[in-house]
Amino acid sequence: VFPSSAFSFFCQTLLLRVFHEVEQAYAVWPMPQQMSQSTDRYPINPQLLAFSYARDSAAQSGCSVLDAAFERYFNLIFPDFVGLSNIWSEPKPFTVSVKVKNGECDGFPDEGSNESYNLSVSAGQAVLKAESVWGALRGLESFSQLVYQDDYNLYFVNKTEIEDFPRFQFRGLLLDTSRHYLPMPAILKTLDAMAYSKFNVFHWHIVDDPSFPYQSRNYPDLSSKGAFHPMTHIYTQSDVKRVIYHARLRGIRVVPEFDSPGHTQSWGKGQPDLLTSCYKGKVPSGTFGPVNPTLSSTYQFLNGLFKEVTSVFPDSYLHLGGDEVDFTCWRSNPNVQAFMAKMGFGSDYTKLESYYMENIVNITAALNKTSIVWQDVFDYRERHRAHYVVEVWKGGCYLCEMRRMTKAGLKVILAAPFYLDLPGPTHNWARYYNVRPLAFKGTEQQKKLVIGGEVCMWGEYVDATNLTPRLWPRASAAAERLWSDEEKTSSVDKAFPRLEDFRCTLIRRGIQAEPLFVGHCKHEYSGL
Amino acid sequence: VFPSSAFSFFCQTLLLRVFHEVEQAYAVWPMPQQMSQSTDRYPINPQLLAFSYARDSAAQSGCSVLDAAFERYFNLIFPDFVGLSNIWSEPKPFTVSVKVKNGECDGFPDEGSNESYNLSVSAGQAVLKAESVWGALRGLESFSQLVYQDDYNLYFVNKTEIEDFPRFQFRGLLLDTSRHYLPMPAILKTLDAMAYSKFNVFHWHIVDDPSFPYQSRNYPDLSSKGAFHPMTHIYTQSDVKRVIYHARLRGIRVVPEFDSPGHTQSWGKGQPDLLTSCYKGKVPSGTFGPVNPTLSSTYQFLNGLFKEVTSVFPDSYLHLGGDEVDFTCWRSNPNVQAFMAKMGFGSDYTKLESYYMENIVNITAALNKTSIVWQDVFDYRERHRAHYVVEVWKGGCYLCEMRRMTKAGLKVILAAPFYLDLPGPTHNWARYYNVRPLAFKGTEQQKKLVIGGEVCMWGEYVDATNLTPRLWPRASAAAERLWSDEEKTSSVDKAFPRLEDFRCTLIRRGIQAEPLFVGHCKHEYSGL
Repeated sequence: VFPSSAFSFFCQTLLLRVFHEVEQAYAVWPMPQQMSQSTDRYPINPQLLAFSYARDSAAQSGCSVLDAAFERYFNLIFPDFVGLSNIWSEPKPFTVSVKVKNGECDGFPDEGSNESYNLSVSAGQAVLKAESVWGALRGLESFSQLVYQDDYNLYFVNKTEIEDFPRFQFRGLLLDTSRHYLPMPAILKTLDAMAYSKFNVFHWHIVDDPSFPYQSRNYPDLSSKGAFHPMTHIYTQSDVKRVIYHARLRGIRVVPEFDSPGHTQSWGKGQPDLLTSCYKGKVPSGTFGPVNPTLSSTYQFLNGLFKEVTSVFPDSYLHLGGDEVDFTCWRSNPNVQAFMAKMGFGSDYTKLESYYMENIVNITAALNKTSIVWQDVFDYRERHRAHYVVEVWKGGCYLCEMRRMTKAGLKVILAAPFYLDLPGPTHNWARYYNVRPLAFKGTEQQKKLVIGGEVCMWGEYVDATNLTPRLWPRASAAAERLWSDEEKTSSVDKAFPRLEDFRCTLIRRGIQAEPLFVGHCKHEYSGL
Repeated sequence: VFPSSAFSFFCQTLLLRVFHEVEQAYAVWPMPQQMSQSTDRYPINPQLLAFSYARDSAAQSGCSVLDAAFERYFNLIFPDFVGLSNIWSEPKPFTVSVKVKNGECDGFPDEGSNESYNLSVSAGQAVLKAESVWGALRGLESFSQLVYQDDYNLYFVNKTEIEDFPRFQFRGLLLDTSRHYLPMPAILKTLDAMAYSKFNVFHWHIVDDPSFPYQSRNYPDLSSKGAFHPMTHIYTQSDVKRVIYHARLRGIRVVPEFDSPGHTQSWGKGQPDLLTSCYKGKVPSGTFGPVNPTLSSTYQFLNGLFKEVTSVFPDSYLHLGGDEVDFTCWRSNPNVQAFMAKMGFGSDYTKLESYYMENIVNITAALNKTSIVWQDVFDYRERHRAHYVVEVWKGGCYLCEMRRMTKAGLKVILAAPFYLDLPGPTHNWARYYNVRPLAFKGTEQQKKLVIGGEVCMWGEYVDATNLTPRLWPRASAAAERLWSDEEKTSSVDKAFPRLEDFRCTLIRRGIQAEPLFVGHCKHEYSGL
């Protein structure tokens, strides 16, 4: 017999509890396309959780991608599991059964990879179905975020149905390893965090003016003379392999960028005669400008380099750069002037850049790879019909730009509103969240040409000391924009508490994601 | 017989080397008041470096502060020393002999502490002389920065003479542990880094609206009800002792701030009737405002709290806050209104705040402590002659403010231009470097009242995930402004390469100081 006040207290507690659980369970970031949940919850005993392949799955034990994922996600779900029996948990088994239609276990994720999955969580089991292992990885990530601990640290998962697929096929993150060298652990950790937000492309802006850390097999002088240090500040072939391997296991493509003809000062140190010699009056000034586009030796070298690079990086895309070319040096050089005259370019140096870019796009195409170029290349020569993907990076009306590009039939990646390197106020995550990549006038066909977006972490002011908190959780805001249904995720206010929760998840997983505002996580980053 | 070109190359190399060494050796940050160096350099063999007390030193073996410093600085100077014999080093001993005039080995650094020192480095020895152990600590820091490694990783120090003392006696750094809880390692690591830049005051903004993490002996409810979590997000008495102990060994004072009457929402949770009950019309609205200044119970409580706090924190200063009081709630409360009438304050609530602040400044004075208050307290009642130190925090014309305060005979600490919490562009370190704290019109007497400055790291957007790179090296720019001769350190361009070097030193010591611009350090932070 309850006294009425005690009964009321009991009911209130119960209600609060139920409410709390539903909130907890909703914390999947980025938000799935379709998701329904009930307050029914099922206990999970760490010792009795098993990942398994469904009998009719195309992937079975021995599938490298999923075997590794099963182990990884066990540790992500139970960060403090030490193998001791938990006497408080119920001794019921819980099975996560994974069925994949087409294996792809030993392949690499690429342009056409299918990342869709269905996840159904009920008593004692979760059933995860996917077309490919890449979709299964996304489903495992969602499942891991569904599991939560109550106040007694017991694990639970709610009854849940998810049908999910990405809005955009290309969800990239750029790291710049030229302006500052990023040691391997910083890159690998970033790949880990990318998977938590379902990013699927690591755009490796590996070289640029300040340094050339890529250690080439065929042109070792490029790094031995062009890196900050020839031994300690380079990426060896085995480093690169490790990055690609680490990324593959997380369903992440690695797209390298070898930006030219500008942004190549460091290339010139190890490759004589590659850069244009700048003139002061009638004599060379001793300084060098962009790659010299007038020499056949230039294209021989680039053919050799790209041949190597495309054999090292399995992805079907190669980023060729093409941004921010300063024409001053070309203008000063009499040989370049003569070449301009011969080609009938007049004094329009954008034609020279276009000529150069066409040549290297063709080299890339001959290697069976798709080129990505920065928007400058399109801006200089809209009517050119080379087969490349354009990446929009300039501020201003990026939607106008996308409209023109898609009208020209080109595939587009949107980076402009996703620059994360400049330290705005932390709370500006909403700026990234509010981006609407398809809000330009155009046909359905045009919209489909927008294959995705990319957050950019340029390296002028960023190295491993501040990379992680500057990336996360702001990059996650962009990730939801690129994965989820825009209509269901249009409210910053509704996203805020979910993103706060997700930040705590990131911290629990060892990612130093910075705070959005005043508050706390159950488990804080210790500062060590 | 040298062929002339080879000889010329040899000379050039030699010259470059000598130049390189001098540059290296000059890297003491903040810059000493007087320093002369030559290119003569002396090898240091880690196995044969010994710190020792001079025979006529007041401090001798057993002096806790210096014994600990000797061990610490050995490890800072030789970060990769593993106790193995270095066959490449010359087997010559090197002695750092320390002479202190007055012991103070077991005391705490405080207002009057003397931090001056002389350091003389010559063949096989460094002689460090200081008034007190606190000055000796500063000298050891300088010595540690003078030692460098050549390309073969051998250690050297150049012939050097330093005469040094701080420009300002108060060089503070504020951490806010209320808006986000900072775990102990984050605080201790910050104290380490502070010592590297010769900061000497840790201003611990320990409580505020969002949370009350200080676990009081006498009022345990304050943290058990007011902290983010009563067990995991608090500072126990032993935590506080550890902070004070860690700080003392580095010559750093710990000045706690218990900010009132505003910024006290979290206090109200554990201390009923402390906060003013806000009214909506004629009934309490259920919300609470600033501390209720009309009740004697308020002052009894504060007397009790401050009595405890001043016994826990040995420093002679106690920060009482007094900033940003919103009068809306006071205005709404009929009891406060009646009190205003009784006191003859009319409707001027600044008088009520002044009344409150006077009372708590008096409580603090009765406990033999000096109060620090934020500038609002002075602004409200300039003519008041209470004995307190004012801290200037508001933007606008802070120099005007300092002129008025010093004219009123008050000691001043300058914080306004040193706010580091908002993430401006990283390269804005020059903004902090360019501050000229004494550039106001006033007498020599007035200038002397400016006892120092303080960098503030407020916690809205900062926790242990991003604290370190947001603090360093920008705080170090302020540190040089507060320690060094302004005339000798007026050039941002000259400071830039020195600060870049110093950042690399910080990284080598495990402090994740962010980069100032494109570049690299010999030893990068790995990202783990």
